[in-house]
Amino acid sequence: MTIPAALDALSAVLSDRLDTGTALREQHGQNEGYFPITPPDAVAYPINTDEVSAIMRPCHEHGCPVVAYGAGTALEGHQLAIHGGIALNFAKMNKVLAINAEDMDAVVQPGITREELNAELRTTGLFFPVDPGANASIGGMAATRASGTTAVRYGTMRENVLALEAVLADGTIIRTGTRARKSSAGYDLTHLLVGSEGTLAIITELTVRLQGQPEATSAATCCFETVDDAVNTVIATIQTGVPMARIELIDPMMVRGFNVYNGSDLPEKPHLFVEFHGSETGVGEQAETFGEIAEGFGATDFKWATKTEDRNALWRMRHQAHHAAGSLEPGKRTLTTDVCVPISRLAEAVGKAAEDSKAMGLTCVILGHVGDGNFHTGIRFDPDNADERARAMAFSAQLNEQAIALGGTITGEHGIGIGKMKYMQAQHGHGVDVMRAIKVAMDPTNILNPGKILPPVA
Amino acid sequence: MTIPAALDALSAVLSDRLDTGTALREQHGQNEGYFPITPPDAVAYPINTDEVSAIMRPCHEHGCPVVAYGAGTALEGHQLAIHGGIALNFAKMNKVLAINAEDMDAVVQPGITREELNAELRTTGLFFPVDPGANASIGGMAATRASGTTAVRYGTMRENVLALEAVLADGTIIRTGTRARKSSAGYDLTHLLVGSEGTLAIITELTVRLQGQPEATSAATCCFETVDDAVNTVIATIQTGVPMARIELIDPMMVRGFNVYNGSDLPEKPHLFVEFHGSETGVGEQAETFGEIAEGFGATDFKWATKTEDRNALWRMRHQAHHAAGSLEPGKRTLTTDVCVPISRLAEAVGKAAEDSKAMGLTCVILGHVGDGNFHTGIRFDPDNADERARAMAFSAQLNEQAIALGGTITGEHGIGIGKMKYMQAQHGHGVDVMRAIKVAMDPTNILNPGKILPPVA
Repeated sequence: MTIPAALDALSAVLSDRLDTGTALREQHGQNEGYFPITPPDAVAYPINTDEVSAIMRPCHEHGCPVVAYGAGTALEGHQLAIHGGIALNFAKMNKVLAINAEDMDAVVQPGITREELNAELRTTGLFFPVDPGANASIGGMAATRASGTTAVRYGTMRENVLALEAVLADGTIIRTGTRARKSSAGYDLTHLLVGSEGTLAIITELTVRLQGQPEATSAATCCFETVDDAVNTVIATIQTGVPMARIELIDPMMVRGFNVYNGSDLPEKPHLFVEFHGSETGVGEQAETFGEIAEGFGATDFKWATKTEDRNALWRMRHQAHHAAGSLEPGKRTLTTDVCVPISRLAEAVGKAAEDSKAMGLTCVILGHVGDGNFHTGIRFDPDNADERARAMAFSAQLNEQAIALGGTITGEHGIGIGKMKYMQAQHGHGVDVMRAIKVAMDPTNILNPGKILPPVA
Repeated sequence: MTIPAALDALSAVLSDRLDTGTALREQHGQNEGYFPITPPDAVAYPINTDEVSAIMRPCHEHGCPVVAYGAGTALEGHQLAIHGGIALNFAKMNKVLAINAEDMDAVVQPGITREELNAELRTTGLFFPVDPGANASIGGMAATRASGTTAVRYGTMRENVLALEAVLADGTIIRTGTRARKSSAGYDLTHLLVGSEGTLAIITELTVRLQGQPEATSAATCCFETVDDAVNTVIATIQTGVPMARIELIDPMMVRGFNVYNGSDLPEKPHLFVEFHGSETGVGEQAETFGEIAEGFGATDFKWATKTEDRNALWRMRHQAHHAAGSLEPGKRTLTTDVCVPISRLAEAVGKAAEDSKAMGLTCVILGHVGDGNFHTGIRFDPDNADERARAMAFSAQLNEQAIALGGTITGEHGIGIGKMKYMQAQHGHGVDVMRAIKVAMDPTNILNPGKILPPVA
């Protein structure tokens, strides 16, 4: 084992910013998914890019795994040091380095969270739009190609990262992309690193796009008799070209979770939670069009939230879905799925998920960013109940296969991590071999978040 | 030389669809740039993906270069077989394979041109928005990450390619991306191939996003006393958030070119050509806001084109810029630059380009997709006049260095090809080494469009 040799070298670089204490290591081995606690051998707190480079050099020399760690909110075990080594915690690299208001971009360090960034932007008239719910770090969001409730309007991290600084496995520092809005200058390394989950390089700086704060914002909830009616409302709304800022499906079981967790009293029926951004007139027009479409599918119980605090309460509730689902059968864990399909196939995919989970006797919540064709199911299972666990896994496998068959993807926004590796071959075929070749080219000693994304060669 | 061995094998696969006639080869050695005629050893016309795969296998075995060929409209010599080998002409792979109107996407073969695709879409209410001016092939546009006049509203090929089928150097067929609107499933091979100029794989099928045909469209031209006023109008318009469909700068010398080439009589002053898409009300509001901003910068001579034929005439003129520039000093060639900078630096960059070209005694037109911060200069030079050629090259070098210094890129949309390789290191630094590592990993025998994008190792 060569990890101890690396730790010796790192301790000379980092002094007390390399921590091997048990409690801290255990904390970095936790996860929001269903994976066992997997502590790293040490936790490092770099303060700048040069230090990240200085960390990578001995790790490269000694073959010590390095796993970048942001806010720890990943759902597929991305941040777990399953082959040991160090967790690179970006808590001390959490600054806004520049706000270029005229160009509507900002340069930030990876450890800043999206809420911290938006707090710093508050007085500029601009905001960072990507909102995965969790208060994730911007570096982690780029690494998993995160998106969330607002992607239907503003895009995902794919569309919102303009440029990166990153440290390669051997410590070399590179810059990808520019602050220009477009470029045709060679291979798109920015988009190669976005979504690479720390397996190709360590992101140390990000240039992200900002949006103008909308002149007017309005949100609403409404409910339907069937999930089909809600989903068909979404499909029709998107196809009509209404520039929805958010359009979220909540199924009756998820509503029950919210009611239990938040003490709310929403009717236990399928809901849409929606938000409109634009000019006063624009928001009014959008809301009217949406309302007409929804009523055509039998929507009732419209509740409008025009005040900021009401909207915040609404989206806070939505963002707590993972924990709210957890309150349905306390003591169990949640297996969260994340398929995304062409919007024309959404009703079919959601309907099948509801049927299958019922047939398999599983407690299942369904919710999602349905304007993108992306929805989550949350399956509650007892990890010590082998039969229930097997049923949960079988459900997930079936759902992922179906998504691929419908022309979609096994993950719209959560990423692969450990949990979805087993479906990579089915989705990508020989594309997985290309990914492996790129991984070997960029990380020949396999120290960057090893054991993630790419399934072992069969 | 192992090319003859490959040609023997290919002739068995393709029969009379492998052509070694001199006239045809010469035609495939032509280019719209300033590069000498460079014919390939043969021209192949594959009819499907399996055949492309069957072509790649002997080429891989015998080390025969393969250069994909679309409409031949590239400006940086991308399609030139500078190391010999075969041109892979996609003229027979030019079909629309599927139009998924509900999902607003289409699946096409690489040889179809954007005008052909839009002709097929006419009755669907949808259109393919990316418009580089030339009637380029969709495959070629993806390979160069093309964009053009409408990117300010609808994005570039980067944003408009959802999925690809491609053939690797050894003949393996892969599929990247899906028809879902987003995905976090592993490395983004789609975006790695978009812009890779045929050096990593041969694109054989593309799934592209479509847009709804706007309910209303309106276009206008107006002129300014100075280029600065025109550019500052653009900056203010973009920063105000007006969703311009097109906003193009034309400098006085380019106006002169249009007048000579088209027989028009536009005042020889800086112009903006603009277009608005939206609802009737929306277009009216946009036009009003733009008009107010432009008048604030002294705009005059507003001419509105609301009729389709007037708009078509306007954009036809704009699209002939390359040839119109050619009419200014007949017999010379045009060196076209393509820098793109953050919009806050646009006035500075355009101003410097105008000054420098004047100081260097060069005839220079300036025009561009200024809403993205992207502009072109067209420098007329006599390739046989060593001094003038050297001045043209020196101007281009200076412009590219300045763009990098301003936080921009040496090419917004034309790509690298042969012409801009020498600036890659300055823009990307160690990023070029990463690109080289990826190239070696995916094309170990260097048969895919060799000698493009990546400068020789110094």
